[in-house]
Amino acid sequence: MENVTAALQNAARRLGENYAAQKLFDLSVGERLPDREEIIEIVNELRKLTFPGFFGAENMAYVSKKAYADSRLGLLYEKLFRQFKVAFSYGNQAESYSEIKAKAQEKALEFVSRLPEIQDWVLDDVDAEFEGDPAANSREEVIFSYPGLYAIFVYRYAHVLYEMQIPFIPRIMTEYAHGKTGIDINPGATIGRHFFIDHGTGIVIGETTEIGNNVKIYQGVTLGALSTRKGQQLSGKKRHPTIEDNVVIYSNTTVLGGATVIGANSVIAGNTFIIKSVPPYTKVSSTMPALEIRQGKPAGELPE
Amino acid sequence: MENVTAALQNAARRLGENYAAQKLFDLSVGERLPDREEIIEIVNELRKLTFPGFFGAENMAYVSKKAYADSRLGLLYEKLFRQFKVAFSYGNQAESYSEIKAKAQEKALEFVSRLPEIQDWVLDDVDAEFEGDPAANSREEVIFSYPGLYAIFVYRYAHVLYEMQIPFIPRIMTEYAHGKTGIDINPGATIGRHFFIDHGTGIVIGETTEIGNNVKIYQGVTLGALSTRKGQQLSGKKRHPTIEDNVVIYSNTTVLGGATVIGANSVIAGNTFIIKSVPPYTKVSSTMPALEIRQGKPAGELPE
Amino acid sequence: MENVTAALQNAARRLGENYAAQKLFDLSVGERLPDREEIIEIVNELRKLTFPGFFGAENMAYVSKKAYADSRLGLLYEKLFRQFKVAFSYGNQAESYSEIKAKAQEKALEFVSRLPEIQDWVLDDVDAEFEGDPAANSREEVIFSYPGLYAIFVYRYAHVLYEMQIPFIPRIMTEYAHGKTGIDINPGATIGRHFFIDHGTGIVIGETTEIGNNVKIYQGVTLGALSTRKGQQLSGKKRHPTIEDNVVIYSNTTVLGGATVIGANSVIAGNTFIIKSVPPYTKVSSTMPALEIRQGKPAGELPE
Repeated sequence: MENVTAALQNAARRLGENYAAQKLFDLSVGERLPDREEIIEIVNELRKLTFPGFFGAENMAYVSKKAYADSRLGLLYEKLFRQFKVAFSYGNQAESYSEIKAKAQEKALEFVSRLPEIQDWVLDDVDAEFEGDPAANSREEVIFSYPGLYAIFVYRYAHVLYEMQIPFIPRIMTEYAHGKTGIDINPGATIGRHFFIDHGTGIVIGETTEIGNNVKIYQGVTLGALSTRKGQQLSGKKRHPTIEDNVVIYSNTTVLGGATVIGANSVIAGNTFIIKSVPPYTKVSSTMPALEIRQGKPAGELPE
Repeated sequence: MENVTAALQNAARRLGENYAAQKLFDLSVGERLPDREEIIEIVNELRKLTFPGFFGAENMAYVSKKAYADSRLGLLYEKLFRQFKVAFSYGNQAESYSEIKAKAQEKALEFVSRLPEIQDWVLDDVDAEFEGDPAANSREEVIFSYPGLYAIFVYRYAHVLYEMQIPFIPRIMTEYAHGKTGIDINPGATIGRHFFIDHGTGIVIGETTEIGNNVKIYQGVTLGALSTRKGQQLSGKKRHPTIEDNVVIYSNTTVLGGATVIGANSVIAGNTFIIKSVPPYTKVSSTMPALEIRQGKPAGELPE
Repeated sequence: MENVTAALQNAARRLGENYAAQKLFDLSVGERLPDREEIIEIVNELRKLTFPGFFGAENMAYVSKKAYADSRLGLLYEKLFRQFKVAFSYGNQAESYSEIKAKAQEKALEFVSRLPEIQDWVLDDVDAEFEGDPAANSREEVIFSYPGLYAIFVYRYAHVLYEMQIPFIPRIMTEYAHGKTGIDINPGATIGRHFFIDHGTGIVIGETTEIGNNVKIYQGVTLGALSTRKGQQLSGKKRHPTIEDNVVIYSNTTVLGGATVIGANSVIAGNTFIIKSVPPYTKVSSTMPALEIRQGKPAGELPE
């Protein structure tokens, strides 16, 4: 076993050297990284507060509604306060611990006080999902199982945290939802009321996208940037499209560019690639591909 | 800390009012919502029963096969019985508790008695995955790691529950698989034997889709509805395509409409958009896009 | 309850018969299947070793870097040794247990000794993700939340295990990452340094793909096989494309075939279907689809 110990020691030494060479892995005393697990717990608490009775042991037939909200909000506040402190502390040389603590408390309370209003938006999104999908049997089914609703729910809260300029947390929240649903909504996007996502896998909605009210988006749609060649130099610029009210975009379509506007009441077919604006009341079609009929013999697969 | 308590109380009061205004959050005594966690446990039990030895602590070299099935079936039946009762009770004013209980028992037994037959279909799908994919090293690898197989496995059981008209549970099962795999098969779809899904992320198979035997479908393929403008009014109508035997559909293609039929033995190329029927023995091609060669200078990214 | 017991017994008997008829479920004494849960723990340990302080309780301000690597490597080695033994034993009649054990130890040590070098590649990928994405606020955000980085991280380690010809484990690792991210990179693919994946959902990179340095790939891109009709007969053949240095491929594009080469410095637009080679310094565009403007009246949805 000597060679095992020696080999492990050797690898450990070299990894230790790698760590020491990386500023990323070098925290100062008192500094901490955000705790992804606790941020996921925050998402879970928000889900319980938004849909009481759906995702916990409590049966709402036997619990006072006010007491339910009360007890859960205390739990949530604690986690928010702790993670906000961590997020504000990281890499922060300018402020004292007591300043950071005061700011974290203030922001956590601001966020908590906005929960009823955000819940209201999310319940409106539940209506959009139910009304828009003939396969939905009930609003309960939408809440329990629709990934589109889950992604929108997480986005609605993360977007408020993004606007409040909380570091790290909004993106960790939406990427957690992305992992669970395949739907990637950047917390910076602005999205109007009554938003409908069907199926949803593969949807990408970039940071500077603006979406109006009553918009419907299907799986595989990208609302993206035309070019990211300049990388970090484009940070903060409008790079993603604007989608006006009542637009429908079908599956696997890509719409790119910060100057691209899809006008109100337009319908965009699936599998199209759009890099210029589309006026209001427009239908964008896809053409059927060529058919090659080979009657009587198997078509086989694609040519080699 | 007074302001913290007051702010939390205030938010709790407003959330409590939101809850009270929503019929969704108002259960009668005795009524319960399905428990998503236990439904996921049912999926896990079904996996252990379908692939003995692959997903649990048991080593099949040391366990009697009949005893393995026996002990697991007892566990499964209990969970099914409990969740069927809950699902049949929810919003049900017409039946007494003893009627609901009798129906739940009957349906749970019916489902359990169909397990051997469903397992047989799933093992046939394992063969399809292994035979169709040159990257598969063994059937064991397919069972352990292929998301396509996982999604089909969950669909096969959920479809039987859908046919048995069990509320909530089939969709919660397939959406759980959707979250894990990116493959969204509505439990209402009918799918023939020896079904092959490769990679699978982004696949959508709508509620009224009909698929024959020996069909192969690649990632990003949508079998969807042409229009959902009428939303809930279309519920129960055939809205999704029919795919006949031996068809292959390549990646990122969208096929829409309840009257659209892809005839037997046809091959559909990737990235196409199909909204009309295709006769049997047909090859549908994609055209290569235009190339713009800029020899000697970097192509950069897309034009801005 | 008699009928319940009888029905469960009957189903158990028939399942037991199904099991007995399947070679897959028939282990010899001493033989074991790999433990997927422990392989996932290996992935988690690799993540902690690659990004110290980011995914565990340890605060790197208070821990010696060498000691951190040391203690974690011991844990990792144990798991690797155990799972390698299992993987080498399965279906192996040719070697004795002591031969298998010696091979497992040797391979586990070889892998551990390569960790510092693989970590170095992964940190280079972190740079690529941060530099290439204007929405990235920090490298920390990339490490915490970018699915593209997660998929590449898992691939980098799995690829080394694939080259070392460890059965089962590489594919279970990359499919675990596929499930979490929607990004399916086969461990057999070869990928150069400084690889950038944006958003990522729906990406498929096949087993025999070759990718150069500084390549950027967006969500929904398939690098796949032109035909898999011959299934297992194609095993081991080059079936997937070659992507040279500095290429960018936009969202939802499909590139197929083992002889297809995308030349260096080319840019491929989104939603294209490529089955022939593209010379270096080429721009491949998509055409905008036809617009049908219906001013003054709602566009409705797609025609029915």
